[in-house]
Amino acid sequence: MRIGVCPGSFDPVTNGHVDIFERASKLVDKLVVAVLDNPNKHSLFTMEERVALIEASVTHIPNIEVDCAGGLLNEYVKSKDSHIIIRGLRALSDFEYEFQRALFSKFLDDNIETIFIMTNNKYSFVSSTGIRELAKFNGKLTGLVPPVVKEALEAKFNGK
Amino acid sequence: MRIGVCPGSFDPVTNGHVDIFERASKLVDKLVVAVLDNPNKHSLFTMEERVALIEASVTHIPNIEVDCAGGLLNEYVKSKDSHIIIRGLRALSDFEYEFQRALFSKFLDDNIETIFIMTNNKYSFVSSTGIRELAKFNGKLTGLVPPVVKEALEAKFNGK
Amino acid sequence: MRIGVCPGSFDPVTNGHVDIFERASKLVDKLVVAVLDNPNKHSLFTMEERVALIEASVTHIPNIEVDCAGGLLNEYVKSKDSHIIIRGLRALSDFEYEFQRALFSKFLDDNIETIFIMTNNKYSFVSSTGIRELAKFNGKLTGLVPPVVKEALEAKFNGK
Amino acid sequence: MRIGVCPGSFDPVTNGHVDIFERASKLVDKLVVAVLDNPNKHSLFTMEERVALIEASVTHIPNIEVDCAGGLLNEYVKSKDSHIIIRGLRALSDFEYEFQRALFSKFLDDNIETIFIMTNNKYSFVSSTGIRELAKFNGKLTGLVPPVVKEALEAKFNGK
Amino acid sequence: MRIGVCPGSFDPVTNGHVDIFERASKLVDKLVVAVLDNPNKHSLFTMEERVALIEASVTHIPNIEVDCAGGLLNEYVKSKDSHIIIRGLRALSDFEYEFQRALFSKFLDDNIETIFIMTNNKYSFVSSTGIRELAKFNGKLTGLVPPVVKEALEAKFNGK
Amino acid sequence: MRIGVCPGSFDPVTNGHVDIFERASKLVDKLVVAVLDNPNKHSLFTMEERVALIEASVTHIPNIEVDCAGGLLNEYVKSKDSHIIIRGLRALSDFEYEFQRALFSKFLDDNIETIFIMTNNKYSFVSSTGIRELAKFNGKLTGLVPPVVKEALEAKFNGK
Repeated sequence: MRIGVCPGSFDPVTNGHVDIFERASKLVDKLVVAVLDNPNKHSLFTMEERVALIEASVTHIPNIEVDCAGGLLNEYVKSKDSHIIIRGLRALSDFEYEFQRALFSKFLDDNIETIFIMTNNKYSFVSSTGIRELAKFNGKLTGLVPPVVKEALEAKFNGK
Repeated sequence: MRIGVCPGSFDPVTNGHVDIFERASKLVDKLVVAVLDNPNKHSLFTMEERVALIEASVTHIPNIEVDCAGGLLNEYVKSKDSHIIIRGLRALSDFEYEFQRALFSKFLDDNIETIFIMTNNKYSFVSSTGIRELAKFNGKLTGLVPPVVKEALEAKFNGK
Repeated sequence: MRIGVCPGSFDPVTNGHVDIFERASKLVDKLVVAVLDNPNKHSLFTMEERVALIEASVTHIPNIEVDCAGGLLNEYVKSKDSHIIIRGLRALSDFEYEFQRALFSKFLDDNIETIFIMTNNKYSFVSSTGIRELAKFNGKLTGLVPPVVKEALEAKFNGK
Repeated sequence: MRIGVCPGSFDPVTNGHVDIFERASKLVDKLVVAVLDNPNKHSLFTMEERVALIEASVTHIPNIEVDCAGGLLNEYVKSKDSHIIIRGLRALSDFEYEFQRALFSKFLDDNIETIFIMTNNKYSFVSSTGIRELAKFNGKLTGLVPPVVKEALEAKFNGK
Repeated sequence: MRIGVCPGSFDPVTNGHVDIFERASKLVDKLVVAVLDNPNKHSLFTMEERVALIEASVTHIPNIEVDCAGGLLNEYVKSKDSHIIIRGLRALSDFEYEFQRALFSKFLDDNIETIFIMTNNKYSFVSSTGIRELAKFNGKLTGLVPPVVKEALEAKFNGK
Repeated sequence: MRIGVCPGSFDPVTNGHVDIFERASKLVDKLVVAVLDNPNKHSLFTMEERVALIEASVTHIPNIEVDCAGGLLNEYVKSKDSHIIIRGLRALSDFEYEFQRALFSKFLDDNIETIFIMTNNKYSFVSSTGIRELAKFNGKLTGLVPPVVKEALEAKFNGK
């Protein structure tokens, strides 16, 4: 059974992420979405909230599991019986940074492969950072994030 | 009447910025320089100081207005009866980031157009960050910033 | 009156180009689409065919003129009483090449300004080269080129 | 059964390509190496020679098939009962070009996915173009191409 | 006598840095490794520790001096009777940033030249940031950093 | 004695090239400008003409030699008792291509080092290709090429 791991901070998950999950889930038998804890960055949503928002957004994908991940990514991937990291790239991503990480990962364990797929260009400009700023100023979120994320963002910023 | 908005933090304004203002002002009937408030970044000069330094540096450009902007940029642009955002790019800019912002802005409001013009290559290495560091260590500022900015930087760092 | 010149080989014009023409035409009082003669490259359509295909595709844009251009672009721009070159960039363009041309153009005549606008990301992957290859192998062209171009390509490749 | 297609001109196949084949073959149940016919480019080796050189270089990979491909790549991929294109990227590749092709491919058929894997950085500077030039001037080829390719290049350039 | 200055934060020094020192030392008569103080960034090792770790790692390079540097880099370079800054670039570096700094440096003093050499691609994915994260999670460091740095990292993170 | 080799096709030499020669000549004891024969590209000037134009343009640089080069660059460099290749990069160059060549060169001979210096940003938009096109259409060449090259271009294009 081929298992793929799709890591990210997903703070919060966007429609671009969900598009990547849908397509990645067709490349492997099981897809693990790994929500990364980044102790250096203050996040808007807690780990638990981020996992719950993803789970509520991917109920239509049968072979998916959402999980928290910490420590070295390679170790986490192996702990899930996987050897495949799947990353979505936007047309305007920082390729250099992503590819450097992939080479580093491979150096640490030659059995682990990082594969890249392109974000649908419909979502190429959508980032979690942009979404958070948009929500803060009460901008329109429809079409950019799953409905459940829209509600969570509105609750976060507009009180109640 | 075509109105263009040229946004930035301008902390402080440099000769490269002034060059962009001069050229952008010829592309539209009125140019609004929008000084952005970035609550996440500590700025060297206050909003008021930054506006005053720009105003003192563009007295030779007749069709210009300097203003403070907050919230979502698209909303600000519309509030000024404009639909044109003008951004200056340096030869060694982060194109990807700028273009992602332009696509995001267009998604949010299809009537708003972002146009890019190239910074004169005479100033292609001048950034506000570089200027602040240079001023801190008492480096030569002549030719890089308007005289009024040079004085303000010297007053800031060397006491009075 | 502000006149803008939008140069290209347009062999053939695509929906991405038409999108740029529509948006560029709102930035100036009159837009001149300049079909460039490139004696070094063999083109699929003749200059006359390319001009006719553009004209048939932009009948909904009132302030547009389609023209042939040769020689130095700067000289052509001045001959049209213009000082503004407008170029459309795709998210995955060769920015370096475009910006080098803009700086060169400015060096030759400081009054000429090149402005860049982003192609709608719906068309970010559409190039004339891709279209020609697609047509050659009888691929689907709907949505990628204006109907009149689709017919011209089919006539070119499938005989008739 | 997941089938992946790895397209290229492979003129000739290098150790960097073989490394990609080895790793790609672990991501799918069957890997088809598709040697592309490029009628616009003069190739050093014929299609038949290129196929034979790859076959002789991948005898250690069980689930691999080497084939000739023509026409539109998407059509070819479907004819092999596949929906996965696998491309190897070097650290210093032309990312923009590769990603534009992937988006175009996806537009033409939403079921086809392009995935990218990184070339081992040990081979990041090895290209078929560089190999051909090296062979022409009798440079050392050991470690850069499979032994059978080394022999074929020497026979090509040094007579026999 | 040609003296070159190789600046960096080296927090900590890696095998990629040592490779650059070895090769840079052959381009000049004397190489000064300048450990930069960055008051804005929290460093893992103190200036003194970083200097000591480099000194212990370059005992095989005869014409090298390790030093602390502060203030404007150009002033420091001149204080060492040098006019040559040597920077190592990784294949996946932020070229734009590095080149902007080089142009700025040259503007400030036309006599100072920045030269770039490529990091051995064996180390192209190794950064001090990656090393610190690896050490924090107890990952394997052998082959990535000099033995003395490995020990210092283990002492830092694993107590004693 | 340190000898550096500065290779290129120089068809024709520009003021940007001369700026690189001036600065490179200060980094080594002797600088060899190597005019490359590219049998695949049609050149405007013959090898002999290109060498003569460079020689006439660098009479103010004492430690320089202009030479023709063929075959593998590494072999040529060694034949000149050198181990240093010096390349000038423009701010908007194709970095990836240049760095790939440098890594390839190093693989072939670990003793050969490629060093990069930045073209003065005053000339960052000047390429031999642009110069040839400018000359063909009788554009102004002053300030872009040495006077002797200006005359040669005018003779080439305007008959005599």
